[in-house]
Amino acid sequence: MKGKNNAVGRWIPEKINGNPVIPFQGVGKYIPDYNKAAPPVASCANYPKDGNKVVPNLREALKKAGIRNGMTVSTHHHFRNGDKVANFLFDTIADMGIKDTRWFPSASFPCHSPIIKHLESGVVHYIEGSMNGPLGEFCSRGKMKGQGVLRSHGGRYRAVQDGQVHIDIAVIGAPTADPFGNANALYGKSACGSIMFALADSQYADKVIMVTDNLVPFPCIPWQINGNNVDFVVEMDEIGDPSKIVSGTTKLTRSPARLLIAELTARFIKESGIMKDGFSFQAGAGGIALAFVIHLKKFMKEAGVKAGWVRGGSTKYLVELLEEGLTNAILDGQTFDLDGIRSMRENPNHVWTSPFTSYSYHGKGHFASMVDVVVLGATEVDVNFNANVVTHSDGMLLHGIGGWQDCLFSKCTILAIPSFRDRIPVIVDRVTTLCGPGELIDVIVTEKGIAINPLRKDLLKALKGSILPIKPIEEIKKEVERICGGPPAPPKVDKNRVVAAIQWVDGTVIDVVYKMM
Amino acid sequence: MKGKNNAVGRWIPEKINGNPVIPFQGVGKYIPDYNKAAPPVASCANYPKDGNKVVPNLREALKKAGIRNGMTVSTHHHFRNGDKVANFLFDTIADMGIKDTRWFPSASFPCHSPIIKHLESGVVHYIEGSMNGPLGEFCSRGKMKGQGVLRSHGGRYRAVQDGQVHIDIAVIGAPTADPFGNANALYGKSACGSIMFALADSQYADKVIMVTDNLVPFPCIPWQINGNNVDFVVEMDEIGDPSKIVSGTTKLTRSPARLLIAELTARFIKESGIMKDGFSFQAGAGGIALAFVIHLKKFMKEAGVKAGWVRGGSTKYLVELLEEGLTNAILDGQTFDLDGIRSMRENPNHVWTSPFTSYSYHGKGHFASMVDVVVLGATEVDVNFNANVVTHSDGMLLHGIGGWQDCLFSKCTILAIPSFRDRIPVIVDRVTTLCGPGELIDVIVTEKGIAINPLRKDLLKALKGSILPIKPIEEIKKEVERICGGPPAPPKVDKNRVVAAIQWVDGTVIDVVYKMM
Repeated sequence: MKGKNNAVGRWIPEKINGNPVIPFQGVGKYIPDYNKAAPPVASCANYPKDGNKVVPNLREALKKAGIRNGMTVSTHHHFRNGDKVANFLFDTIADMGIKDTRWFPSASFPCHSPIIKHLESGVVHYIEGSMNGPLGEFCSRGKMKGQGVLRSHGGRYRAVQDGQVHIDIAVIGAPTADPFGNANALYGKSACGSIMFALADSQYADKVIMVTDNLVPFPCIPWQINGNNVDFVVEMDEIGDPSKIVSGTTKLTRSPARLLIAELTARFIKESGIMKDGFSFQAGAGGIALAFVIHLKKFMKEAGVKAGWVRGGSTKYLVELLEEGLTNAILDGQTFDLDGIRSMRENPNHVWTSPFTSYSYHGKGHFASMVDVVVLGATEVDVNFNANVVTHSDGMLLHGIGGWQDCLFSKCTILAIPSFRDRIPVIVDRVTTLCGPGELIDVIVTEKGIAINPLRKDLLKALKGSILPIKPIEEIKKEVERICGGPPAPPKVDKNRVVAAIQWVDGTVIDVVYKMM
Repeated sequence: MKGKNNAVGRWIPEKINGNPVIPFQGVGKYIPDYNKAAPPVASCANYPKDGNKVVPNLREALKKAGIRNGMTVSTHHHFRNGDKVANFLFDTIADMGIKDTRWFPSASFPCHSPIIKHLESGVVHYIEGSMNGPLGEFCSRGKMKGQGVLRSHGGRYRAVQDGQVHIDIAVIGAPTADPFGNANALYGKSACGSIMFALADSQYADKVIMVTDNLVPFPCIPWQINGNNVDFVVEMDEIGDPSKIVSGTTKLTRSPARLLIAELTARFIKESGIMKDGFSFQAGAGGIALAFVIHLKKFMKEAGVKAGWVRGGSTKYLVELLEEGLTNAILDGQTFDLDGIRSMRENPNHVWTSPFTSYSYHGKGHFASMVDVVVLGATEVDVNFNANVVTHSDGMLLHGIGGWQDCLFSKCTILAIPSFRDRIPVIVDRVTTLCGPGELIDVIVTEKGIAINPLRKDLLKALKGSILPIKPIEEIKKEVERICGGPPAPPKVDKNRVVAAIQWVDGTVIDVVYKMM
C-alpha cells in the first residue's frame, strides 16, 4: 500500500476505494481550483403539468428513477435512531435484485443494523458516511467490502457540491410533503424540525424521491426542500418512529463530574469576556452541553447579557433562551426535542439552517466561523490539542463526525470532556484518529482542570489570575494517568488494512481508521 | 443575413450577437441534453472569518470583484421605476473607465433612461433583458450596438442556470442586509417584499455584490438571498425611491370598457366551473386584473368557494382574500403595494417564490403549470390566438415579457384585453411580434365579447348556452375593424435589421424585433 504522511503527520494511502486522495495540507491551505458539480438540466416537458408526482410505491419510484447496479443512493439522518426509510429502501433494492450500491447517508445509526445483511450479501457495497454504533463496528472489523469515508456535515455538502460524490438517486424522508415534492419537517407525526441535511441531495442528485407519511395538498408551506428538484413522491405508512426521532424531554446528565465540567465551561466563557452583549454560541445536545447551557443562562441573566444569536441543534434549553429574550435568534441545524420543533414552527426567529449556510467550507464564508464560542465533545485529545471524535482508544470506529469539524472554525472552540471514561484516559500523547487539528482547538475543560491552547495567548492573558483551575494540559494528563494506572493501551489494529478515511472539511484526508485485530 | 422559419412561421436569424440560436420548435418540443452551469468553487479560506464582507463603496467592490472590459453585470428590477442601483452602478463603471459591458437586468424601466448615455459612449455594449419604455425605444430605433435578448422571468432563471448567460458580477440591491450578505426585502425604507428575481444571479454569478441602504447586524432574518453566495456588501444612502418602488394604494381602472372586461373575465371563470373549492388563480397588477379580482372575490363569497392558493404579484386585493379566509395561501413573485409587503412580512401563508419555483421551464416542473386559471394582458392577439406582449402594432418595442410566457402554462390562460387601443385594433390577422403560441392561449375576453380557442372543446362545451357573449374571434375582429376603420397599418420596419430576439421559455427563439424605419 503506497502513501505518505500529511501535514499533521498521519500516514495517508494514495487511494481510497480506488480513487486518488489528497492528504490534508493544513488548515486553509488547500484551495479548490475547479468548478461545482453540474447536474443534468431537466425540462417541465417531462414532468406532469398538474404537478402530481405521486407514484404508487418506492419500488416503482426506484424503477422510474432508473436504479441499477453500482449506483449511489443517499438518505438523510434527521430521524436519527428512529429512521424507517433507509432499511425499507435497501430491503426494496435487495428485492429488486440490485447489487453493489453505495449508500451515502448523511449519517447512520444503530437502527440501521439491518443494513449489515445487505452489506454481507453485496446489495450495498459500502457506506460513504458517518457510522454510529454497529455499522461502525462492522467497518472496524474489516467486514465492509469498500472503505468507509467519513465527512462532517459541511464536508458532505461540500463533497456533493464539488462533484466528488455523485448521487444517482436521493431518497428523502419528509414528515410533510405535497404531491409536487415540496417538503418540510415541521408538521406530521414524524416531525423532526428540519430536513436540511437533504439539501445537497435535492440540489445535486440525478433523481430525487420524496418519501412521506403525511401527504398534504399543494402547497406544502413552508417548503424546506423544493419540489422543483423532486422527481417522484411516495407515500409510506411510517417513515420513522416518533418516539425515537425526538426525545419528548431532553435528559440532563446526573454525573457530578460532568455537571462540574458544564459549570466550569460556562464560567470560563463568562470570565474570559466572551459572554458579552451580542455574543453567539453553539453547544450540542449531549448531557454536558445541556447542563452548560443552563449554567450559562444563569450567568447571562445575572450579568444582564443578551446573546445576538445562538446555534442549534436546539433543545428546550435553547428555546427558553429565545422565549425569555436572552437571544435574538436560534440558527438551527437540527431539533433534538419537541420544544425545538414547536419553536421552529412558531417563531420566525428560530430559523432552520443548512449544512451549506452553516458549515460548508467551500462557500463564500459560513456561519460556523462567526460563532464566538462553541462547546464540543471528543473521544480523545492529545497534548497538542489535536482531537479524535470517531474512534475509541481501542481503535473501534463508533461515532460520526457530525458538525464537529465544521464547528472548530468558531472563534473559540472548547472541548468539554471528562478526563477519563471507563478508567481510560481521554487526554493522551497521540490520538488514535486525528479528526481535528490542535491549532483550531482552544480550550479543554475537564473535571480535573482547564487547559488553554498555548497558541491562544489572548485567552491565557484574559484568564490570568482567574480562580478557575487553569493548568497546562500535560499536568491534567499526568493526573489522569495516575488515577487510571497509565496511558491507554495502544489500539490493536492491522496497519496494513485501512477500513475508513476521515476527510477534513476541504475534502483532503486528515487520517484513516485501521482494521481491528 | 442567414436564417430560417421556426415552428410558428417566424423567420429567425442564424445568429444573435454573434452566437448561434435555436429556432422555436413547438411547445415542449425542445428537450435539453446538457448540464447546468458550474460556478467556480469558493473557499472559506478566502473570506473574512468574522463574516464581515462590508467594503467602503461600490467602486471598491467592483474593483475587488475584478471588473474589466466586456464583462456581464446583472441587476434585478424589484425596485421597478424607483430603482437607484443600476444608474449608480453604470455611472461608477463609466467612471472607472470600463467599456463594452453587457447589462443583464431582470428588467429595465423608464427610470433607467440615464443608461442610454452609457450605451452611446460604449460603457454598455448592449442590454440583455426586458426593456420597458425609453430603452426599448432606443433599441427599436437601432441605436443599440448589440442586439437585445428578451426573456420571461422563468426564461432568465433558466438561461443563467443553463449556463447560456454567464454573469461575471451580480449587483443586488437589498432593502435589508447583514455584513455577511444575507438579505431580504421585507424591511427597510426600500422594502419591496421579495428580491427573488436575483436568486439566479446570487447562485451562478462569479462575484456577487450586495448593495443595501439598511445594514443590520448578522443574522438578517429571514434571508431571501443567502449570504453564503455573496462576496461583498456595500452600503449606499438610497437604493431606491420608496414612493416609486411600491404604490401606497393600488389604483383601479375607471374605464367602463376595462371594468366590463374584468367582470366578464370573472363571470367566465365562474360559469366555466373553474371557480370551485380549492382552485387556484393568478392575475397581474394592471387595472383590469385588479378589477377582475374584486369581481371574482364577490362571486367566490356568493358561492361559498374558497381558493386553495393564489399567485401574486400581490396587491391589497389578494391580501384581502388571504385575510378573509378566501384563499389558503398566496405564492408570490413580487409585491406591488404596501399591503403586499406587510402581508408577506406577517403571514406565513404569504410565501415569496422565485423564478425557479414558479416559472423556470428547465426544472422538474413549475408552479405556473399548476395554476387553474391565469388572467393576462397582451398588446396584440391574432385570430389563431397567438399573442404579442412586447411591441405595439407600429413595431416599437416598449414592454418586457415579465412572467407572461411562463404563465401561459396555466391550465386556462385568459387574455383580458380591450379590443382596441387608441383606435388601433388589438385583434389582428398576424401579431407584430409573436411572444406566445396560440395553442397555449385559451380565451380572449374583450369588451366586445369572449372568444374561446377552438382547441379548447371542453371550455366550449362548458359554456354552451351561457348568457356570456361568446363569439368566434374573427367576429370580434371584424367588429373592431369596423369601429377603427380597418386593421392596423403594417409596421414600418427594416426587415434586414434585427434589433432584438424574443426567446421562448426553453431558450429557443420564437420571434425577433426589427429596426423601426
